Amino acid sequence: MGQNIIVIGGGGAGLGAAGGAKAVDPLASVTVFTENEDVAYSPCGIPFVHGKEIPSFEALFLADKQSYVDAGIEVRYQTKITAIDTSTKTVQIESDQPMRYDSLVISTGFSYANPGVPGGELDGLYYVKNIREAMEWDKRLDTVKKAVVVEASPLGVEMITALAHRGIETHVIDPNPWALGELADPDIVELAQESWAELGVTMHWNTSLQEFLGNESGAVRGVRTSNGDIECDLVVVATHKVPNSELAVAAGLKTGSTGGLIVDGGMQTSAAGVWASGDICEIPHGLGGLPLQGLTGSHAYAQGKVAGANAAGGNRTYNPVYVPWGMVAGKWMIGGVALGEVTANALGMPHVVAVADGISRARYYPGVKKVRVKLIAEPGTLRLIGAQMVGGEGIKERADFLGVAVKAGLTLHDLATMENVYSPPIGALNEPIAVAAQKGVASQMGR
Amino acid sequence: MGQNIIVIGGGGAGLGAAGGAKAVDPLASVTVFTENEDVAYSPCGIPFVHGKEIPSFEALFLADKQSYVDAGIEVRYQTKITAIDTSTKTVQIESDQPMRYDSLVISTGFSYANPGVPGGELDGLYYVKNIREAMEWDKRLDTVKKAVVVEASPLGVEMITALAHRGIETHVIDPNPWALGELADPDIVELAQESWAELGVTMHWNTSLQEFLGNESGAVRGVRTSNGDIECDLVVVATHKVPNSELAVAAGLKTGSTGGLIVDGGMQTSAAGVWASGDICEIPHGLGGLPLQGLTGSHAYAQGKVAGANAAGGNRTYNPVYVPWGMVAGKWMIGGVALGEVTANALGMPHVVAVADGISRARYYPGVKKVRVKLIAEPGTLRLIGAQMVGGEGIKERADFLGVAVKAGLTLHDLATMENVYSPPIGALNEPIAVAAQKGVASQMGR
Repeated sequence: MGQNIIVIGGGGAGLGAAGGAKAVDPLASVTVFTENEDVAYSPCGIPFVHGKEIPSFEALFLADKQSYVDAGIEVRYQTKITAIDTSTKTVQIESDQPMRYDSLVISTGFSYANPGVPGGELDGLYYVKNIREAMEWDKRLDTVKKAVVVEASPLGVEMITALAHRGIETHVIDPNPWALGELADPDIVELAQESWAELGVTMHWNTSLQEFLGNESGAVRGVRTSNGDIECDLVVVATHKVPNSELAVAAGLKTGSTGGLIVDGGMQTSAAGVWASGDICEIPHGLGGLPLQGLTGSHAYAQGKVAGANAAGGNRTYNPVYVPWGMVAGKWMIGGVALGEVTANALGMPHVVAVADGISRARYYPGVKKVRVKLIAEPGTLRLIGAQMVGGEGIKERADFLGVAVKAGLTLHDLATMENVYSPPIGALNEPIAVAAQKGVASQMGR
Repeated sequence: MGQNIIVIGGGGAGLGAAGGAKAVDPLASVTVFTENEDVAYSPCGIPFVHGKEIPSFEALFLADKQSYVDAGIEVRYQTKITAIDTSTKTVQIESDQPMRYDSLVISTGFSYANPGVPGGELDGLYYVKNIREAMEWDKRLDTVKKAVVVEASPLGVEMITALAHRGIETHVIDPNPWALGELADPDIVELAQESWAELGVTMHWNTSLQEFLGNESGAVRGVRTSNGDIECDLVVVATHKVPNSELAVAAGLKTGSTGGLIVDGGMQTSAAGVWASGDICEIPHGLGGLPLQGLTGSHAYAQGKVAGANAAGGNRTYNPVYVPWGMVAGKWMIGGVALGEVTANALGMPHVVAVADGISRARYYPGVKKVRVKLIAEPGTLRLIGAQMVGGEGIKERADFLGVAVKAGLTLHDLATMENVYSPPIGALNEPIAVAAQKGVASQMGR
């Protein structure tokens, strides 16, 4: 008999862990518990089905249930773990007998932060997450005339674009002065915001939610904000992600300043035999070590693989993160890595900023799009500490690149002398990353 | 009076030099000599006008003649420099008086290698280079039924695609067993070749040109090859680039093994007061230092800026090159950097190969395209020494990235743990660069 490995959670982090465990110990008994009806779908695709970019929800399923059976992974659907006992190494499955584990991986994910205002019980408040629920909400969107998105978070940004594409009159309220206020610089989101305006989106910045307003039948009819009321048929609540940590906290596992579980470099929690992965954890930032929680599905899956491998006896490491990010906002792609100008200022970090406006193809090639690259560097050494970008093409690949560049300690000098592909349909004579770096180097010459 | 700087050549390298000189010494008198009617157009765009992707040749002009006047750069059009005397620091302009220089930049560019077979004087042999000539050839293409491209070089690849898009029955002959045989691996060009076949292109590999066949009126009627005759109305001669070095050689400047001028790290030639840039030069490869000649327009322009700046009294360095490359071939993008598997084998360099087949967006997002990444690394250290790629999106940006990675000495370990942007419309859960690196690392574990 192999060891018993239990995974709590059927999202990317949990399934990554199950696969990681099986890869290290094919004889292990691996059981995944999920409260949902499904595993292995891409919740990240939901906004794009709502926006009609993707024709159906069926497309979002990644694998059928049989494929997990075939892989030797037992998935227990619609089954809730109600307690963990790390001293007896057991989990409690509702009213069943406790089940013993040799190793446990907690991947219980996130919830959207409770807005903490009156009216939270009303019908018509949409928390975008579960695919079955999303299918129901999608039918309802056909009848929605006017919607409010609460917070221009990454999900909020995608939902604003989706609702507008769907032809719904869309409003966004956010306490920050611009979209993605905690992640992106204003000159980077400016083009995205312009394109939302073209799509008819009304943006209410510096505006806080005060109440969900209901009608006599208990359905939402609007929101009350710090800048007045907005009528609507539907509210998308896209507040920040908070870890689903109740179960772990009740079991005595240590959490950090973000509320996420503290894990070591091998994704092990404070308890022997217990690992964690995904949005339940906090992970140190590669620059300065501040803990981060609520990263991307790519991070969750990679953490899961490490946690699962180690739970099965492996010895893998998950490194601190630099968080390259990117998304579509209106008709633009925006993205970046590590620190932006605004976050560097907020952290009081001295920095040099270098910006270049370039293009994605030869100036004369059809489909050419603007690409703005802003590089943030340490004064003196000109070591890269972050980037922010907006453009029509190639933002994800550049963000991946610059994530590696920050981690490797490359400087603006390194980027200023980089070579670049020049081919009219796919790349311009001058790469905007190189031009921005050249400007940054030149700006320091006179000092 | 400022110093006199003369630039010979009005392509990207020459104009880069003129601009680089003016940037360092705005009072310098900068004169550019060109034998052509124009400067500042993009010859790289010509194949795409022929292919009808770009609507007109006018689009290829980057700046009008007045803009050089405004920048204080004198351009002498249709004027040939017939001799350089480095002892008297003069150039001879046809039958005029010699003109004195304080600094000279030679940027005389390249010609296509003479195929060296009978029939080279026939009408209908098209060497793609000059924009005015290209306009005339473009009219002629309307009447061409059948064309042969001699050599699937980078230009040849673009012209095959262009002629096929134009609806011309297109044949390619090449002595190598596959397209881009000296640059790309066969598994990388395979998809491109399949898409050419779909466009009706007939490929004749391992096939050498023996003769251009003419009719009684002196026009080409076909080619004789090592595998038989092919009839055609037009031949595109896309042989490799050779440096236009006659003038420099006659002036006693030293050339290297490629036939290009030898330059130092500041782009200075073997003669005092004489710099060079672009296809006339040879530049050491960053791995091993083998000299390379005939790089891209991006390299030419960057070299020109360094040569011009130094000619005007600056102190800039041009680094050895790793040559990220990329282009469209049929319906695919192909690209890479530094060594491929075939070149590593040819050089007898021990190496590890790691391949991943990935996708450019979420699997379910419309427009998703295949992306194959092959990484080449040094055994043991797993230091990256090259990459080869084919895919539908993001090849140029990945090639730029991996060029910096090779130069910075990053390893497959670094790339295996890279973070990546995951967002359904712009990036998949798993970045193929990371997956290839993970496979490469795993393959070495058992050793």
